[in-house]
Amino acid sequence: MWVTSQDTTVELTAETQTALERAEASHRHEALFSERAHNIKQSAVRDVFDISIRPGLVSLAGGSPSLAKLPLDLVAETASRVIREHGMTALHYGGGKGTEELRELICEIMAEEGILGASPEDVVVTTGSQSAQDIAAKVFCNPGDVVLVEDPTYVGALNTFEAYQVQVEPVFMDENGLIPEHLESRIAALEAEGKRIKLLYTIPSFNNPSGITLAAERRQRVVDICRDHNILVLEDNPYGMLRFDGQPLTPLRAGNPDDVIYCGSFSKIFSPGVRLGWALVPKHLYRRFYLAAEAVVLCPSTLSQLIVTEFFRVFDWRSYLAESRGDYAERCDAMLEALAEHFPAEATWTTPEGGFFVWVTLPEGIDTYPLLYQAIDAGVVFIPGAAFTPSDEPSSKLRLAFSGVAPEQIHEGVRRLAPVIRAAVEANTAPPV
Amino acid sequence: MWVTSQDTTVELTAETQTALERAEASHRHEALFSERAHNIKQSAVRDVFDISIRPGLVSLAGGSPSLAKLPLDLVAETASRVIREHGMTALHYGGGKGTEELRELICEIMAEEGILGASPEDVVVTTGSQSAQDIAAKVFCNPGDVVLVEDPTYVGALNTFEAYQVQVEPVFMDENGLIPEHLESRIAALEAEGKRIKLLYTIPSFNNPSGITLAAERRQRVVDICRDHNILVLEDNPYGMLRFDGQPLTPLRAGNPDDVIYCGSFSKIFSPGVRLGWALVPKHLYRRFYLAAEAVVLCPSTLSQLIVTEFFRVFDWRSYLAESRGDYAERCDAMLEALAEHFPAEATWTTPEGGFFVWVTLPEGIDTYPLLYQAIDAGVVFIPGAAFTPSDEPSSKLRLAFSGVAPEQIHEGVRRLAPVIRAAVEANTAPPV
Repeated sequence: MWVTSQDTTVELTAETQTALERAEASHRHEALFSERAHNIKQSAVRDVFDISIRPGLVSLAGGSPSLAKLPLDLVAETASRVIREHGMTALHYGGGKGTEELRELICEIMAEEGILGASPEDVVVTTGSQSAQDIAAKVFCNPGDVVLVEDPTYVGALNTFEAYQVQVEPVFMDENGLIPEHLESRIAALEAEGKRIKLLYTIPSFNNPSGITLAAERRQRVVDICRDHNILVLEDNPYGMLRFDGQPLTPLRAGNPDDVIYCGSFSKIFSPGVRLGWALVPKHLYRRFYLAAEAVVLCPSTLSQLIVTEFFRVFDWRSYLAESRGDYAERCDAMLEALAEHFPAEATWTTPEGGFFVWVTLPEGIDTYPLLYQAIDAGVVFIPGAAFTPSDEPSSKLRLAFSGVAPEQIHEGVRRLAPVIRAAVEANTAPPV
Repeated sequence: MWVTSQDTTVELTAETQTALERAEASHRHEALFSERAHNIKQSAVRDVFDISIRPGLVSLAGGSPSLAKLPLDLVAETASRVIREHGMTALHYGGGKGTEELRELICEIMAEEGILGASPEDVVVTTGSQSAQDIAAKVFCNPGDVVLVEDPTYVGALNTFEAYQVQVEPVFMDENGLIPEHLESRIAALEAEGKRIKLLYTIPSFNNPSGITLAAERRQRVVDICRDHNILVLEDNPYGMLRFDGQPLTPLRAGNPDDVIYCGSFSKIFSPGVRLGWALVPKHLYRRFYLAAEAVVLCPSTLSQLIVTEFFRVFDWRSYLAESRGDYAERCDAMLEALAEHFPAEATWTTPEGGFFVWVTLPEGIDTYPLLYQAIDAGVVFIPGAAFTPSDEPSSKLRLAFSGVAPEQIHEGVRRLAPVIRAAVEANTAPPV
């Protein structure tokens, strides 16, 4: 290629030509993006994903399960046997709903937390529970429809909903979870504006990021309010079985089979790497849900499904979960102790009864987003609170995950973070010069 | 629950009460479905999926790869080693783009078919290539936008696009694939109507369902036409490496890195059960594509990725593919022979140079959909042609897959199908009584 400018003709190098062509294509293709593409943002959690696996850093960022006590030999042996004995099935296409055996296992798991009598016929196996949320948005939400969420809520779900151009509306929580009166008044206000509310997305047990649990006595009330306004409840319960003490709280789905779509996951109770979750769908909504699932991925991984099914058959997963609960409780205690020891008095935090996260609140006026970079310099990673709300306002909150890190590392991470927090608190309260 | 009617009060049984409540919820929730949900249909391919695995039936329906020569012991051993040695990675969350090692392997594979110098940085690993199509539609298509497709085309892609409420517009093919002049005139006509055309979805090598290949001399012309009209090419190439004789035809992507999104898959060259495909995306479109992928499934299965990467490292996959090509050629020959032997002279069919499918055309006026049920009674399954076009018109075509069935079974299947076809041809040409 030759370009002529001011009577001088120059031959461009191949690299320059490539760059020019790309710039031209980039400009031309900008017009091709869908409206929804502009709504799809980088998640702050993923932002720090690469950073948080850097050696030497303590990551209190990702909501990673602890895999330390998984018997890798048994998983390996199971995978090997499944492939040797059932390879022609395991390596082939499967049905769009998932295998019957896995759907039966899923019903057994759900029974442990109080969903009794669920039918495998009402389960759709999905590629992680994120995919179930994506499908729910796809099946129910037109652009402009409203999805109600807890404030704060799971960042991945926010990204998923925003990709469908829905209006995500936060509902306040207190220490007992969603406030029914606030839920009612938000619904009334939105309906008065003529909005169409389709879903309430809720993580009732050990909410991500706050660790807050919806109190037992509020649970039916929340479903009833939604039913009265013809709003479906999308219950996301990845941590429900990971209650530190006592029995899991009964999921919203248990007594409300017609009004709740329940999402479960193997990510927190076994392994995120197999990418298997599920939705338990009201019978009358099942067909459309399952067809939409098929349009997205055709079928979930047969190999993953057979390995998980067989592993749960030969492994004492109930004892493993009991032990996991103890380990997470220990890690949570380590974090609460470290926070009490190192954090300034101006910071407050939640005391979760299960799950993976502690939610820290700093004095108003502090934006935790810039603190992340100071924290990384200090050798520790967290997720700034702004990630977990649909609003673009700065947030004085931060999420600390205790799930994936050993107790002594948790102590070390909080110790490294504390000076960053103290400096921010001091700068914030310093009188103007 | 008690109901009162004409002065009689009856107590309802629990079953009746449940049924009444479900009917009420079903009625109430009908209003909640999104507009797009009404566009998501059951695929005819999936319709017969359950049927086609019935013992005794010969399935010429599913586009299943032959796994018969996969060394299951080596796959099993590889999976076992990956989990034992890298379990903490394999069972954990991974990055949204896929692992670097797998993206490097993918670039090696693409180099085999003529895409040279692709960068792993431009690859997104997806949950099957269906997921890549879903993401492309998500990122580029607003409701009402046009996606051009070959007529006929892959039913799964049709379902995926229709879920985004796009207008799917077929472009004619002849025995050399897409007809450039028809492509131009369709584009002109649609643009004259004020339509916004976003994508051309094409399977240039061994099109599913027709087996037709876009001639080498037409390939650049198709891309140029699209570029001139600012239409992105979405090239789906799952079968490209499975050319019976000679080198694979160079993909459209090879010389057009800025204008083609290329979709590849491990489903046909290794295993559909691992659910791994990929998209090679123009650099300037990569970020939005990858963020949308993340919003759907967070990350592809790490376990599947590590198993595939390691298996391709220890396995002579190039020789395996060479052998596969021979096996598929043999199966294709068996089908062509059987058709010549058993089918009536009124039927015509394609002669594919690779891939999985033969496309049969019956005389006009015959609808192959009802013939499917007669075929099942006769012990054989196929996919009726209507599945592969966006139109709702009856079709006199049918797809026969030779890929997943041994040669003698192919003969038997065609032998069983022939009387059904002959009867339909005779009934069609019979003079009106």
